Parts: sequence; C-alpha cells; structure tokens
Amino acid sequence: MTPPVTKPDLQLWFEFASTYSYLAIERAAQLPLTVSYQPFLLGPIFAAQGWTDSPFNLYPIKGQYMWRDMERLCEEAAIPLRRPSRFPRNGLHAARVAVANRAAGWLPSFCRNVYRANFAEDREIGEPAVLAEILGDMQLDAAALLEQANSPASKQALREQTERAVALKLFGAPTYVVADELFWGNDRLEQALRFRERYSPAQG
Amino acid sequence: MTPPVTKPDLQLWFEFASTYSYLAIERAAQLPLTVSYQPFLLGPIFAAQGWTDSPFNLYPIKGQYMWRDMERLCEEAAIPLRRPSRFPRNGLHAARVAVANRAAGWLPSFCRNVYRANFAEDREIGEPAVLAEILGDMQLDAAALLEQANSPASKQALREQTERAVALKLFGAPTYVVADELFWGNDRLEQALRFRERYSPAQG
Repeated sequence: MTPPVTKPDLQLWFEFASTYSYLAIERAAQLPLTVSYQPFLLGPIFAAQGWTDSPFNLYPIKGQYMWRDMERLCEEAAIPLRRPSRFPRNGLHAARVAVANRAAGWLPSFCRNVYRANFAEDREIGEPAVLAEILGDMQLDAAALLEQANSPASKQALREQTERAVALKLFGAPTYVVADELFWGNDRLEQALRFRERYSPAQG
Repeated sequence: MTPPVTKPDLQLWFEFASTYSYLAIERAAQLPLTVSYQPFLLGPIFAAQGWTDSPFNLYPIKGQYMWRDMERLCEEAAIPLRRPSRFPRNGLHAARVAVANRAAGWLPSFCRNVYRANFAEDREIGEPAVLAEILGDMQLDAAALLEQANSPASKQALREQTERAVALKLFGAPTYVVADELFWGNDRLEQALRFRERYSPAQG
C-alpha cells in the first residue's frame, strides 16, 4: 500500500519592516492553501552581515530602484502604496504580537493591516499605540494582546523564531520555505509552489 | 493623424561573471523580439559600493542560496550547470569582444557559448586562450577578434559602456532596461516585457 503523500507546509517568513514582505502578505491571503505565517526579525541577521541599516539605505541606488519597483508592482496588483516618511520602521512589537498569536484566525488580517499602516498610510507601526489602534479596529482586546506581546514568554518566542531563521540560513525577507528549501523574494512564490507540488519525501 | 507607436528596445545588460545573467542570455535567444545586448562590467559598480568581491562570496549564506537556486532553475529550464571551480571569473576580455561586436549576427551565440564554458564546462573564460577556442569553434577568426578586443578603441568602448551602466544606476546583473526603466534580475523579464507592451511615449 502506498501511504498518502502529505505535502509540506508553505511557510512565509516575513519582517514587518520589509517592503517586499508587504506584497507577499497581500498575496498569501488569496492562496488556495494554508500558509504558515512565520514572523521574524531581520535586524540580527543583517547585523551578522555587518549591516546596521536596511541595505536599501546602505546602497542608495538599490534603494531608489526598490521604491520604483514597489510603485510598479503595487500598481499592477492594485495594492495601495504611499512611500513612508520613515524607512525602515521597527517591526519588533508587531512581530511579538504575531508570534504570540500564530494560530489565531485573525493573524493574516493583523499582518495585512500592519503592512498597510506602514506602507499605505505612513503610520508609525513601531509604536505600540499604533498597534493598539490596529487591534482595536479589528474588535480585538488591544490592551490584553499588547500586554501578552510584552511578556517574557512572547519575547522569548520571538528570539527563538529568529534563531530558527538563522538556522534555516535566511538572509532576507520575504522568504518562502518548503521542507527546508528556501525561495527568497515575493516573486518566487510560484517557484515555491511548483517545488511543493512536485515534492515527495525521500524513500526510507 | 496618430503617429505610429515605436516600442522601445528591450536592453539586456549582463556581465559574463554573473550566474543569473547566464539564465537571461539563454532565454534572450528565444524571445520573439530583438534583444539589445549590453555587456558591461560589474566590478567598478561593486567597487563603488565598497565590495571587492562578488556579494555571493562576501555573504556566504546568500552565496549558498544562489548556487542551490541556480541548480533548481537550471533543472527546470533544462540548462546545463556545473558549479565552476572558480567564482567569479574575470569577464573583461569576453566583454571587450562583445562590445566591439554588438552588431554582429554571431554575438548571441558567442555570449551563450562563453556562459556555457563558464557555468557548464568549468573553463577559464578569463583567459584569452579559452576565448580563442570558443571563437574558433564558431568558425570565426579568433586571432583577429582578440586583437580587435585588445585595441584602445575596444577598451575605450567598454569603459564608456560601463559608464553608461553607472549613469543608468545599474547595481547588478542581469538588468533589463526599457526606456530607462530598470528591471533587475532574470526573473523580471516578464515584467519588463509587460512594461514595454504598455509603453507609450509621453505626450508632447
């Protein structure tokens, strides 16, 4: 008898400060499969490469290209974009909320709302007060969720999540992960899906 | 009367040392339009960013991802790949040959053969002797072409070409250019083609 083949999860690793992660989060909600949301922090990973700022700020011509590219991509996909007055914004608190609530049904909407606040509404998503507004607008208990996010357990959960990102050898966001194979960049979603479709576990 | 709309060229800017440029050159020959081949050198552009080596060597986890990604992409596209024993190889002489012969009908084949020598056959494309073999296999006058490539005019032509790349704000290869809009990466070909298709010159 052939055992049923279980396809591996499609993991979406994202950072709230990352522009191209915004596009990936917008698309994830439309996929005909469950996406495993994996928030993490790029800061420690960039720091290990010697970067103390976004590479889009460290390499200005690359940054200039990225903003033009985002304009074009958002226009094609009908995703709102307003270049934020501060970049990158600190995704720490939002990532703690997300990591502590990865199983919640409202997580995809929360992520999308945080990205829209950052990249379409120019709001200071690094501020807990702005996250409280976002959670409140979703009819969630903002005070309780922010208290939870600030707990030692949530802080530890995000640290462990970022350690997992390091162990997976992630170097940027968004990255799709299928059975430990990395697909870096929003534009690699289709390739990741093809890989997942063809995937079969190694014979024992 | 409406004047006929002339679509802008699809320019393909590439560097012989660049892995993803190999994929772009392989695809260019299959496109249903004339591609404008634009060889240039990434070295001076990377040096201006403070890099003295390929970023795939400077950032090893990014390099490890790139080689795995190349394996997957080449397998999907049935393009041969053997990881070269030296990376990156010096594309200077090949670029001089290419720049001096941009109008030649054999240029696309020459480029493709150089990339295959580098990335499928592990040959030292930085050596004029290897370029002579490639040109000779194409039934071309290798000695004359290499002498031409080494002339002051060819050296100057490549310097000017690389200055054009800087003026266009290129920061990597391959880059597609359509009417001064940049599309960075082999995987951006489709987006560049959509942009070209929709392009209309600004009203005077």
